[in-house]
Amino acid sequence: MTLIPKTDRTTLKRAPQRGEYDRATIHAILDEGLVCQVAFVVEGKPVVIPTAYGRVGDRLYLHGSPASRMLKSLQKGIDVCVTVTLLDGLVLARSAFHHSMNYRSVVVFGEAELVSDPVEKVAALKAFTEHVVPGRWDDLRPMTDKEIKGTTVLALPLVEASAKIRTGPPVDDPVDYELSIWAGVLPLRLQAGTAVVDPKLGDGIELPGAIAHWRRGSEH
Amino acid sequence: MTLIPKTDRTTLKRAPQRGEYDRATIHAILDEGLVCQVAFVVEGKPVVIPTAYGRVGDRLYLHGSPASRMLKSLQKGIDVCVTVTLLDGLVLARSAFHHSMNYRSVVVFGEAELVSDPVEKVAALKAFTEHVVPGRWDDLRPMTDKEIKGTTVLALPLVEASAKIRTGPPVDDPVDYELSIWAGVLPLRLQAGTAVVDPKLGDGIELPGAIAHWRRGSEH
Repeated sequence: MTLIPKTDRTTLKRAPQRGEYDRATIHAILDEGLVCQVAFVVEGKPVVIPTAYGRVGDRLYLHGSPASRMLKSLQKGIDVCVTVTLLDGLVLARSAFHHSMNYRSVVVFGEAELVSDPVEKVAALKAFTEHVVPGRWDDLRPMTDKEIKGTTVLALPLVEASAKIRTGPPVDDPVDYELSIWAGVLPLRLQAGTAVVDPKLGDGIELPGAIAHWRRGSEH
Repeated sequence: MTLIPKTDRTTLKRAPQRGEYDRATIHAILDEGLVCQVAFVVEGKPVVIPTAYGRVGDRLYLHGSPASRMLKSLQKGIDVCVTVTLLDGLVLARSAFHHSMNYRSVVVFGEAELVSDPVEKVAALKAFTEHVVPGRWDDLRPMTDKEIKGTTVLALPLVEASAKIRTGPPVDDPVDYELSIWAGVLPLRLQAGTAVVDPKLGDGIELPGAIAHWRRGSEH
């Protein structure tokens, strides 16, 4: 187990038992999520934007159009805070007060850096695609130089990062356990439906197994 | 259709066709989501925290312990940005460049206000519970005065808010439609598993139908 050192910002003050600083735990949550939330400050005011991401080793990658306000702001090296949240279940207690949720979340603080090295940039672009559907990259028409140049990629080092996790049943007031009220956890997960073929798809092109059998995370 | 007036911050500069300002659309996304992301500024730096929420009319409610740093910061009337993101599908194009996601998201800007009126506070507390499992509030042991006093509730008026929505198949480069690469959309939704009974639940307490048949959003 390798730990990411705690900082003042990543140390949980309340419910400290929910904090996790193990690198493998943080990586697993990032790898299971699909959308992250990127918060930054514009003219003194907070902005948070949902976006896709990828991870290679200890670097979280963001990408988009060079015209993106978010990417233009972030590549100035300003402070950023990124979260990924996986909702695992509704915790249904006997009182409203003790209702909760089971979740796994990661928060990363730092400054993003523009990725200009072409080798790292292509590796990051591959990571975005592979993050969504493993194996997809090799099935695709290769990226063109124009596309690579036309995509801004930023890296956020996973240096100041922590996870927060709640699992298990509700915790009710002792006297409430005698009430005739159903209590427990309703597990939730992101589930894929049946793939919808592009109406413009040519005949005889088979659905790849990685899409047909796509699933995320471990079984509840 | 009643529209929420656009502001500079809620007007989409790129892909303006994805912007929605209809109040009913914004409310529907907020009602389907379960976790929001609350961004604010602490000592000049951005922080974003996932948390539960509720909605009554044109007010989004946040709540938690009076000891919560987030709630202590927000009740000073500082600027806040809240997002709710629903991931509807993976958009799998013929090139990595045109991969995308189908989603519905809402962003709200404003200043949160402490809710001190007891009637509004109880209505908000009910909204948090009903938002998670409709009908649950009436099944529960009523909240005590101590619990109500011991919960901080903040309201964020839905005055500066917008939705952003992507739907439909991938949009590939014209020449790429001739490639023998599968393309389409893999729909995703939050799915409930089988309810897990609290190990401390007494005998003979039935699982309520609203939990057994819990589902979120419309069918794909």
